[in-house]
Amino acid sequence: MVSKPTPDRPDDLPGISLPESMRQFCVDALTQLRDESFDGVGVSRETYGPGETAAMERVESYARKEGLAVEWDAARNLIVRLPGTNRDLPAVATGSHLDSVPQGGNYDGAAGVIAGLSVLIAAKRQGPPRRTMAVYALRGEESAWFGGPCYFGSRALFGALTEQDFRTVHRDGKRTLADCMDAAGADVARLRSGAPLVDPAQFACWLELHIEQGPVLVTRDKPVGVVTGIRGNHRHRRVTCRGEAAHSGAVPRWLRHDAVLAMAELMVRIDEHWRVLLEWGEDLVVTMGIVETNPAEHAVSRVPGEVSFALEYRSQDIKTLKSFEALVQSECEQVGAKRGVRFDLGTPSLTLPARMAPDVVALIETVCTARQVPYEVMASGAGHDSSVFANAGVPSGMVFVRNDKGSHNPHEAMAYPDFFLATEVLGGAMLAAANSEPEDN
Amino acid sequence: MVSKPTPDRPDDLPGISLPESMRQFCVDALTQLRDESFDGVGVSRETYGPGETAAMERVESYARKEGLAVEWDAARNLIVRLPGTNRDLPAVATGSHLDSVPQGGNYDGAAGVIAGLSVLIAAKRQGPPRRTMAVYALRGEESAWFGGPCYFGSRALFGALTEQDFRTVHRDGKRTLADCMDAAGADVARLRSGAPLVDPAQFACWLELHIEQGPVLVTRDKPVGVVTGIRGNHRHRRVTCRGEAAHSGAVPRWLRHDAVLAMAELMVRIDEHWRVLLEWGEDLVVTMGIVETNPAEHAVSRVPGEVSFALEYRSQDIKTLKSFEALVQSECEQVGAKRGVRFDLGTPSLTLPARMAPDVVALIETVCTARQVPYEVMASGAGHDSSVFANAGVPSGMVFVRNDKGSHNPHEAMAYPDFFLATEVLGGAMLAAANSEPEDN
Repeated sequence: MVSKPTPDRPDDLPGISLPESMRQFCVDALTQLRDESFDGVGVSRETYGPGETAAMERVESYARKEGLAVEWDAARNLIVRLPGTNRDLPAVATGSHLDSVPQGGNYDGAAGVIAGLSVLIAAKRQGPPRRTMAVYALRGEESAWFGGPCYFGSRALFGALTEQDFRTVHRDGKRTLADCMDAAGADVARLRSGAPLVDPAQFACWLELHIEQGPVLVTRDKPVGVVTGIRGNHRHRRVTCRGEAAHSGAVPRWLRHDAVLAMAELMVRIDEHWRVLLEWGEDLVVTMGIVETNPAEHAVSRVPGEVSFALEYRSQDIKTLKSFEALVQSECEQVGAKRGVRFDLGTPSLTLPARMAPDVVALIETVCTARQVPYEVMASGAGHDSSVFANAGVPSGMVFVRNDKGSHNPHEAMAYPDFFLATEVLGGAMLAAANSEPEDN
Repeated sequence: MVSKPTPDRPDDLPGISLPESMRQFCVDALTQLRDESFDGVGVSRETYGPGETAAMERVESYARKEGLAVEWDAARNLIVRLPGTNRDLPAVATGSHLDSVPQGGNYDGAAGVIAGLSVLIAAKRQGPPRRTMAVYALRGEESAWFGGPCYFGSRALFGALTEQDFRTVHRDGKRTLADCMDAAGADVARLRSGAPLVDPAQFACWLELHIEQGPVLVTRDKPVGVVTGIRGNHRHRRVTCRGEAAHSGAVPRWLRHDAVLAMAELMVRIDEHWRVLLEWGEDLVVTMGIVETNPAEHAVSRVPGEVSFALEYRSQDIKTLKSFEALVQSECEQVGAKRGVRFDLGTPSLTLPARMAPDVVALIETVCTARQVPYEVMASGAGHDSSVFANAGVPSGMVFVRNDKGSHNPHEAMAYPDFFLATEVLGGAMLAAANSEPEDN
């Protein structure tokens, strides 16, 4: 799909350097987007709501001003194009989403759209590329507005929205997603038909620039991250451990079936497996974010008879998720037998991981090396539209920008020098992909 | 205080055997107490309330019918006496409480009073003992009615009630303990003066028969327990562990400060110390009965930043409690440093343990051996009036009766054959103490 530039000849790389005027364009555009969606605390660009639409129309106006082609698809995603010299070849696409969580940060999503737009503008000034280059300003990536489901814009591209999605209700409790899509000008009947809006084969590759939502780049002191995959997750929303409630003074250790101590032992065993699996080279994060004894019966002076907790583990590798599930099951049985308690893992839910394409990852790394940009190879723990592209079969890659204080809050702290470096990496990779020799089919 | 009978000459033991008529008396008396306080579910004999008073008056009527001396003290405890031939000698006393928890069991407390009464009746028929023998029907042992404080009747004997006790409010939210005592006919002004109602030196020893509130005797298949001490407890009502909340997908293990995993490790370390200390011969039970992450911020997909839990440990030995507190503190520091979290143990509360007198324990064991009654030497994990007597300086001992299904519920299941064996042990020990040669002073 993508021909790799030769790593030992970095001079061959058709690079991209943002001139001062383009840098100013990025700062002005992101500032304007922020000002137009500021809610008094952070920014609010509602999924398929007016704030999101206003941001998309603003991006459209920037594109038109630069003479780029614009199109709105049936999901009311905005697509900006720089046509290539050979329109029969699949396009090199980038983009991200323009919605935000309520009172969210300005860069989560919008940074990737503006980065992509600036790459197209800079590329246009260099002369037309071989392949068409495109920027997708996607809608509805955040799960905050419709209580869980998300990636509406990107999933619509591949005909992956379900009737359940259309009926999911907005947090205002009134409108469904279908209502909001309709109000935003989407062709809901067309989307409901389930027919894809694009063929994955139309894309040579997909690249997304996004701020990192964790602290890895800040801690490693690297401006840029090259993402190898987006972690899927396995969730047990409520694991229950049942032992036997008893008098805390009168029942000796050898007659107890203490649910809390059994849970603690299970957690420590799981934690130890996690530590070892990381040393073994697996990608894994494990979280038990909610714990509670049963308030109807717990007491300071009562051996706890019941406790429940949430268990979530994430990995880029579905095999790791499945093997870890089996390991957890086995430890539940062992601790249960040892301590005379019973664990019930409930019915888990699974979100599939998405692997970034190795040749796209290698291309981004090559560009970083050629441009001497320090980078960290890392997993994305949060979900992104890129997982939808990757799982639809489009060779995908992501560039992370260092960002302090996480995301989904107004305190996200991306520094522009990092953003410019990442945008130059994105542009370098896109131009390399757009201008590479077509492979024989 | 008590001259020991010589263990290698069990024939010397002035034993007591309950004739069939006395056994019937016990069954009838306990049945009548139950019937008169049945609330539809269990029995309710309120601390310093009508149900308790009715039970005491019923016991008084049994005693008068047998020609025993009766007296009500200023705390409205009932004392039944069989005068000895030498009234200058301290008395041998037994007894228990007549109140119950709401919807409680009939034997918790009342069994000890009826056992003591039957011993006095049987002893009277054998001819007067050297020392006076007494049965105390005590009031207000349970903590259920006044939200925590308890042992009102026995503490009143030793002038140990505080102004805070008198002002503590009944669970009905209306009346204070002083109000209820006054209504039950106690001399509240006298009690408030803090002057003891008895001198501990008046007692040669104190013995209490009580049903076991744990499962040890049932599990060990022994009808009788000989109690070596009543566990005190050290309570940390709310230990807090604070780490750092974070995105469960985007923050890798090495950057986490997971409060729940830190708590789990602390619990497993505490559990392991407990196991080793038991093997070391210490008396200890440890309970973490309440656990909860902070509902204001916890989520399935959030690394938990805060969790709290209750921590209680009990031992017969104050040194063990104090050493364990230091161990817990040290483990909190170690786990905290290792995992980047902070534990706050809060201000603990301490209830002192009470040691049963070794010579009283030995006397009860000797009687069991002589009568070939299988017995278990054990700690009492629940609190009893005997701890008040012991800590006031009265040489004390307790006889437990096997009881299935715990206490404080209507399902307590003491079998009468076990009760008769335990009562004969109680009686044997009391008669041995009452008739032993006075020690030189």
